[in-house]
Amino acid sequence: MDDPYNAFCDHAAVYIDGAGEGPLTGLTFAAKDLFDVAYYRTGGGNPDWLMTHPPAVRHATMVETLLGAGATLVGKTHTDELSRGIFGENPHYGTPVNPRAENRLPGGSSSGSAVAVAAGMVDFAIGTDTGGSVRAPASFCGLYGIRPTHDRLSLDGVLGQAPSFDTAGWFARDADLFAQIGAAMFDGDIDDYTPDHLVIASDAFAAADDDAAAGLKPAVGRLSEAVGASEWRQISPDGLDVWLGHQSVMQGREAWQTFADWIDQNNPRFGYEVSEIFHFGATLSDQRIAEAKEAWSRIVAHMDTILTASTFICLPTTPFAAPLRGQPRAATKELRRRIGSLACIAGLLGAPQITLPLGDVDGFPLGLSLLGPRGSDEQLLGFARQLSRVV
Amino acid sequence: MDDPYNAFCDHAAVYIDGAGEGPLTGLTFAAKDLFDVAYYRTGGGNPDWLMTHPPAVRHATMVETLLGAGATLVGKTHTDELSRGIFGENPHYGTPVNPRAENRLPGGSSSGSAVAVAAGMVDFAIGTDTGGSVRAPASFCGLYGIRPTHDRLSLDGVLGQAPSFDTAGWFARDADLFAQIGAAMFDGDIDDYTPDHLVIASDAFAAADDDAAAGLKPAVGRLSEAVGASEWRQISPDGLDVWLGHQSVMQGREAWQTFADWIDQNNPRFGYEVSEIFHFGATLSDQRIAEAKEAWSRIVAHMDTILTASTFICLPTTPFAAPLRGQPRAATKELRRRIGSLACIAGLLGAPQITLPLGDVDGFPLGLSLLGPRGSDEQLLGFARQLSRVV
Repeated sequence: MDDPYNAFCDHAAVYIDGAGEGPLTGLTFAAKDLFDVAYYRTGGGNPDWLMTHPPAVRHATMVETLLGAGATLVGKTHTDELSRGIFGENPHYGTPVNPRAENRLPGGSSSGSAVAVAAGMVDFAIGTDTGGSVRAPASFCGLYGIRPTHDRLSLDGVLGQAPSFDTAGWFARDADLFAQIGAAMFDGDIDDYTPDHLVIASDAFAAADDDAAAGLKPAVGRLSEAVGASEWRQISPDGLDVWLGHQSVMQGREAWQTFADWIDQNNPRFGYEVSEIFHFGATLSDQRIAEAKEAWSRIVAHMDTILTASTFICLPTTPFAAPLRGQPRAATKELRRRIGSLACIAGLLGAPQITLPLGDVDGFPLGLSLLGPRGSDEQLLGFARQLSRVV
Repeated sequence: MDDPYNAFCDHAAVYIDGAGEGPLTGLTFAAKDLFDVAYYRTGGGNPDWLMTHPPAVRHATMVETLLGAGATLVGKTHTDELSRGIFGENPHYGTPVNPRAENRLPGGSSSGSAVAVAAGMVDFAIGTDTGGSVRAPASFCGLYGIRPTHDRLSLDGVLGQAPSFDTAGWFARDADLFAQIGAAMFDGDIDDYTPDHLVIASDAFAAADDDAAAGLKPAVGRLSEAVGASEWRQISPDGLDVWLGHQSVMQGREAWQTFADWIDQNNPRFGYEVSEIFHFGATLSDQRIAEAKEAWSRIVAHMDTILTASTFICLPTTPFAAPLRGQPRAATKELRRRIGSLACIAGLLGAPQITLPLGDVDGFPLGLSLLGPRGSDEQLLGFARQLSRVV
């Protein structure tokens, strides 16, 4: 396949026809190179991971589900190393090109999946989202994207990172297909849906750049209208940065536990940034972990009072549109932190979040997100589809 | 050149004839890929360093000196990444093979230079030594090696790491050539020399494995005889590990300062271990640095009372012979620390140290070291040559 956007992995020129007739027959998709595809090695965005692992013996469950629904797998896509990045910059394989903003970052870690969809090379693609890895690239590339409820979809055959936060979702260019994939994934119909109540997270909007908040305003207005009952409200009493601190600590510790043995055995090559994040996880004190876990319970209990049945929370997916490529770490670290402060909310709650390509900053896409109670995935998808018809 | 031991860099197939007739005419040498060679890029053992730097415009001063003395440069050799390793394991270019122990490590960071000499591919080779990078591979590969007095030889055109500790030295298979290179480098004759007094560092020998200490014993006996006046004595009142702690802190901070901007701009790929060492340097507190510097002054003052004129200190170069290849980081970290606890002494003092291939552990080479007062480089070389005639 011609790949001018560097979306696909060279080591896995996969092509697997969908199984007979199904709801997704005729559609093509790509899978982030964290999903096992039988007979191919899963590379995880790192050449030393690729080199030290045998080919997969079976497809990841989600790949199997999509093939069973008739979709055709046409490739595996680039990812940040071991999913540990949010911008899509991979020092081994290069940075996929954002078709909507060629001198800007595509977002990651599901960078290649987002780019393949945004460029029209596939109809849809799957990715993982531990700390924003579907939502950020969907926002930057102008796509629909979902982080499902934690633990609702099987991650069998997916290279995990931090089990308490790992999820896998998908990207699509339109809300109809976005929902249709959900029907296959959740094995049930996606009905039209409108929540009773919309909470617009004032602290999340305050965390965004002014032009980003302004670029989302028209869409927020349309959402409010569609729902009827809406209110602006601060959702984090502690501050979103404090929440991110706790989430990063727990994710960091778990990610280190996932990869520590392999790192110690193989001394693998990583871009410096990824090593630094691992080192952060490796050197956390048990006391800091305990503090984070205690805070986590409090955060979930607090949010359960806001995110009641038939309530969605509206927030910017990312605090800005795609940043420029090739910035120094001093700049990107701060940008990463700011993305994390919004992305951590769904992560801490285990709640589903969808991002809709409804924002615009100087012609560059920016996602608007809806976050629902745990288990409301189908309702989010149903609302997104319904909204797309009236907008 | 046929390179079965993986000593040489592929990116610099250098061949530069020596300049006319000189003391080293007819001899071939290799240079660690930290030394600039005009028109070639200096790679420093890291592909991203190589990629982000232009070709050198002139030879490093030491290369120029050797070419001027008539020696012919036949290649650039592998190094640990940016000289930040002691075993010679390079995750990008592989580990050079120790000709004296093929399933064991060659030692580093001047790994390729030591291997090229030990394998007889060149007559001699140059390397750098910040924290043991000439001495360790010389010990493991059964060679003569020198860390000169700090600041005696020009490091112009050498990719530095930690200026307070950086030196550059050389490897040879026999003591005559070892001294002859010194004559060219120091631009003067190397006379026979015998020190008045030999201090055998009891704490350094206690830090070695039992079989290593035993494997050096015959050579220590011959040295004592050659000198006449010798005594066993503990040289570090604080413990050599404490000295290493201070030295590592200062080296770590300086190395981070050397490379921080480049790392921040380029997010380069490193083996995890190297990133971890950089991260250590990046996160040291100013207070810890101040403590180390204060201790450093005390250590130098203390050692100046022991290492008086015409005294040499005798110690194991490394606490063991070459370790096995491919061990996990948990094992190699401890081995690295133990090597450092001996190597840090010369580093802290800025004093010259030579290692002589006089030890044997189950058939594997082990170096015995002599450390002299600052500026006694020629005397060390003269003594080594004289000793080789009587042994």
